[in-house]
Amino acid sequence: MRRALPTLPFSIEDAARSEQEIEEASQAGEQLVRVNQDTRLDFRYLDTRTPAKQAIFRIQCQVSDFLLSEGFCEIHTPSVIAGSSEGGSAVFKLDYFKDKPGCLAQSPQLHKQMAICGGFGRVFEVGPVFRAEKSFAHRHLCEFIGLDVEMQIEKHYSEVMDMVDRLFAAIFDSLNEKCSQELDAVARQYPFKPARDFTSVEIETDSQQLVAGIRQATQLDYLRKTLRLRFEEGIQMLSDAGVEVDPYGDLNTKWRENLASLLWRSMTLNSKFFIAILWLLGLSIPCHDMMTQSTTTHLMSSSEEKISGAQRIHVAEVLSERAGACGIDVNTISTYIDAFRYGAPPHGGFGVGLERLVMLFCGLNNIRKTSLFPRDPKRISP
Amino acid sequence: MRRALPTLPFSIEDAARSEQEIEEASQAGEQLVRVNQDTRLDFRYLDTRTPAKQAIFRIQCQVSDFLLSEGFCEIHTPSVIAGSSEGGSAVFKLDYFKDKPGCLAQSPQLHKQMAICGGFGRVFEVGPVFRAEKSFAHRHLCEFIGLDVEMQIEKHYSEVMDMVDRLFAAIFDSLNEKCSQELDAVARQYPFKPARDFTSVEIETDSQQLVAGIRQATQLDYLRKTLRLRFEEGIQMLSDAGVEVDPYGDLNTKWRENLASLLWRSMTLNSKFFIAILWLLGLSIPCHDMMTQSTTTHLMSSSEEKISGAQRIHVAEVLSERAGACGIDVNTISTYIDAFRYGAPPHGGFGVGLERLVMLFCGLNNIRKTSLFPRDPKRISP
Repeated sequence: MRRALPTLPFSIEDAARSEQEIEEASQAGEQLVRVNQDTRLDFRYLDTRTPAKQAIFRIQCQVSDFLLSEGFCEIHTPSVIAGSSEGGSAVFKLDYFKDKPGCLAQSPQLHKQMAICGGFGRVFEVGPVFRAEKSFAHRHLCEFIGLDVEMQIEKHYSEVMDMVDRLFAAIFDSLNEKCSQELDAVARQYPFKPARDFTSVEIETDSQQLVAGIRQATQLDYLRKTLRLRFEEGIQMLSDAGVEVDPYGDLNTKWRENLASLLWRSMTLNSKFFIAILWLLGLSIPCHDMMTQSTTTHLMSSSEEKISGAQRIHVAEVLSERAGACGIDVNTISTYIDAFRYGAPPHGGFGVGLERLVMLFCGLNNIRKTSLFPRDPKRISP
Repeated sequence: MRRALPTLPFSIEDAARSEQEIEEASQAGEQLVRVNQDTRLDFRYLDTRTPAKQAIFRIQCQVSDFLLSEGFCEIHTPSVIAGSSEGGSAVFKLDYFKDKPGCLAQSPQLHKQMAICGGFGRVFEVGPVFRAEKSFAHRHLCEFIGLDVEMQIEKHYSEVMDMVDRLFAAIFDSLNEKCSQELDAVARQYPFKPARDFTSVEIETDSQQLVAGIRQATQLDYLRKTLRLRFEEGIQMLSDAGVEVDPYGDLNTKWRENLASLLWRSMTLNSKFFIAILWLLGLSIPCHDMMTQSTTTHLMSSSEEKISGAQRIHVAEVLSERAGACGIDVNTISTYIDAFRYGAPPHGGFGVGLERLVMLFCGLNNIRKTSLFPRDPKRISP
């Protein structure tokens, strides 16, 4: 290093300090500097010199080995697409070439499905996705890295759920195994207990017993085989807890959140990490989920994070019908629907944000800690 | 598979046929169907059902192991950036939020340098880069996947050149080792001889001898230690061959192409692959390369492909001066220049297009064969 300015905007020491350290000093009458988030992001190249931040970004690059070993092919689908992605207002429009309106993909969903129609069998992608949402929430970014998976189904949708289980157990195992130094470095500044394989709880089919079993655990971590609740079991738990539910209703967001928080509150609180699968087959589906046939949701950390998975509709005629019923002009998505006309295997998949995953694994409170150069409605640099 | 339309736009058999097969049939009086490129791209999900295409995309996902094992951290830098990327007209503009003009990054160059200033030591990225160039050339795309590498330099720029050597040897080794089935599948439709480690040629310091040595080889492939020509040796070769060169001139594109084609023509022609390093230290630099201090260019396949590498200027004051001299308004790139004010180690790096790399390795004639859903000025779907 040479010719650095003699005074940095903040010292690396200040930036590396834990909240606890600052508070203890404060109680002892000493006022230590607290480096705020915006300053950190303005000078991200200083902020990342702290051991915790170094560790966070090294943790992020360990997730794809398992998928490759399971025969998945890593693909790269385009960020620039025609029309308006999956619709809605949360799309960034683009001046492509003169006569072509374009936008940035809100997810690789359509293209990974086309890859399945293209004979790949199993694909995944780690790449940027774009959401023009005017949100400054601690878990929202306008550009983030999606880990998206799609696979052909041989017999039953449970294959997709099994893959979610095995993938995340493998990711967490691998993080614990390969990144112990990095996890320690994060924990020194942002204390957390790393998630651990938690196989001592016996999996019961009865959801009440399950939750009771989990409650007894002193350290809740990830289960090698994730808690899997059927729709009707979820309904039962909610109604037992006095939450009003319509047993013939949709698997809507509020319903999910209620159940997640119920599960969450039932558990010991010394772990911030928790996965459950809710799953639903063959019921009516909310209209915005045009391509969904059966769904699962993994809930993590008090409903904060969802890995949403679904079996897709793979029959072009049904898709067209559904689009019509949802008020979508079929012509605008014809290249997508056409992909299913020439033979399409049953398939399903899921997606999760990479920065969110690391944020939750490390018990961090803001996604701006795990995105290297975060983008939100007010931040487009550095 | 169910309910496929009875007639496909083209048969997988037709799409899987090699040119040779079509021509042999034609000589025997039989007219076989040739599926053209646009039709393949319109129905990419059919085209990818051919063994060769399946193989091509499986080959692409094997490149990052070596870098991780060398202590590089995989990073994800933003695609959406403020201002106009590295300038020029080849930039896609974006409606970010109301008061913020944005664009798509033409390369992760600035951000990977900031990561080096941020203490990462060694970083790489595999991610999309965007070029709004109105080109339909066989090697140009408007969105492609860049493999970009940046590293701190301990003593000398040769460390970066060594890394290029070792990385590409490792990638080629790994492709040959892990993807032999896939390479065979490609070769059945698009005949090529896979590149092979070619260590039997002794490396001579004298460039004339070197080229002579390579000429004797019956199969030219990659050298474990790449042919490395110093600027003045390159000048000498060109002037020996009757090409007019200014020994005090810049390392310009035409100069590079001349030398590459000279090297290329000097060699046996049974391999399409060739790497040489041209390198230049401390001479005057063309103005558009504001951040360059010393450069190398790897030339592959008759100057078609370049891995351009460079040591960057890491002193903010020099950068500011250089920007001024190049007519760039320093204010527009101030967050970039500021990153060097608070301590920046000497560093350098290089980048290459992933689709181009696979295209060249497999001796393919068009990048649209190695990009899953290619984007060019006329093609923004599917």
